[in-house]
Amino acid sequence: MKRIAFYLVAIAMAGGMLAVTAPVSGHADEEAAPIYGVKLPAGYRDWALISVADVGAPVNDIRAKLGNDITMRAYRDGKLPFPDGTIIARLAWQQVTSEDNNNAIRPFAEKQLPPEQVKKLLDGSFVAGPPTNVQFMVKDSVKYASTGGWGFAQFNDGKPAGEATIKTCFACHQPAKDHDFVFTRYTP
Amino acid sequence: MKRIAFYLVAIAMAGGMLAVTAPVSGHADEEAAPIYGVKLPAGYRDWALISVADVGAPVNDIRAKLGNDITMRAYRDGKLPFPDGTIIARLAWQQVTSEDNNNAIRPFAEKQLPPEQVKKLLDGSFVAGPPTNVQFMVKDSVKYASTGGWGFAQFNDGKPAGEATIKTCFACHQPAKDHDFVFTRYTP
Repeated sequence: MKRIAFYLVAIAMAGGMLAVTAPVSGHADEEAAPIYGVKLPAGYRDWALISVADVGAPVNDIRAKLGNDITMRAYRDGKLPFPDGTIIARLAWQQVTSEDNNNAIRPFAEKQLPPEQVKKLLDGSFVAGPPTNVQFMVKDSVKYASTGGWGFAQFNDGKPAGEATIKTCFACHQPAKDHDFVFTRYTP
Repeated sequence: MKRIAFYLVAIAMAGGMLAVTAPVSGHADEEAAPIYGVKLPAGYRDWALISVADVGAPVNDIRAKLGNDITMRAYRDGKLPFPDGTIIARLAWQQVTSEDNNNAIRPFAEKQLPPEQVKKLLDGSFVAGPPTNVQFMVKDSVKYASTGGWGFAQFNDGKPAGEATIKTCFACHQPAKDHDFVFTRYTP
């Protein structure tokens, strides 16, 4: 169990940026995350969608990346590096089976697929369950010059994750160096 | 192949509402979808995120539900039925494997999991690929009184789907009658 728990934290970082089960909107007076001093950005839950992804077992989550206006403009204009003021949020939820959802899919599936394929389809269909954490990447080319211009933060249920977690963020984003350390691409 | 193609259409409807590989923003002069006369809503791609989901093989998609301001307020206030003016968009993309993404996850995974579990994790990790279609539910309790107050539409690459597709929408949403015919729940 301990191994899996640690693993979940590592993957939370690997798959995106920084992480919270946050309230609907962040508030400016929220506690700052360690190292980069990033606070939960106000209103981030209303930001536009960049794209979605999911991570396999044993993580089993579904994730969405949201961006503030500066971020969305940069993506759509194909602008790299991302300009100062860019903030990218990575939300993630545990994948859960939804009986409501499966009841809606089943009649269509049963008309067209043999039983074992219906089962496979429903077993692989999920909705978003409880949130896991929320991560942020904040661009400030002066303040965060030593880490590619990016500050990182993770919030678990609204509380900043510890220094040990945040320390690993930048190293993990190195494979995306050619895309200004950002893994996610915009999907229309 | 034909069976799978038809199946994909059915599931597109089953999992959400109505369906487009749409341009970044809809335009008021877009062609109206059959039956309910719904047009691609302007700016829907910038709407806030309600939640995410995915559908298993052979559909293999990742989907996001977005809502206009009226929708998001209704969700957050727990307001049912949804008020007139509510528009819910269901976007969906083919699940694709991303080598960039897997290269980021792999080092963490290999430190903590045996090889066959690393493989399982990466095989089950996806990003959003090409869009499949976009579906909409539009609330107008007078205009659409005979279908629970909802008009439905689906767009494939910006073009309205045919009447045969749209005819099935309302019946498919019957299992969600207690939630005003809407399957998706808001996830913070």
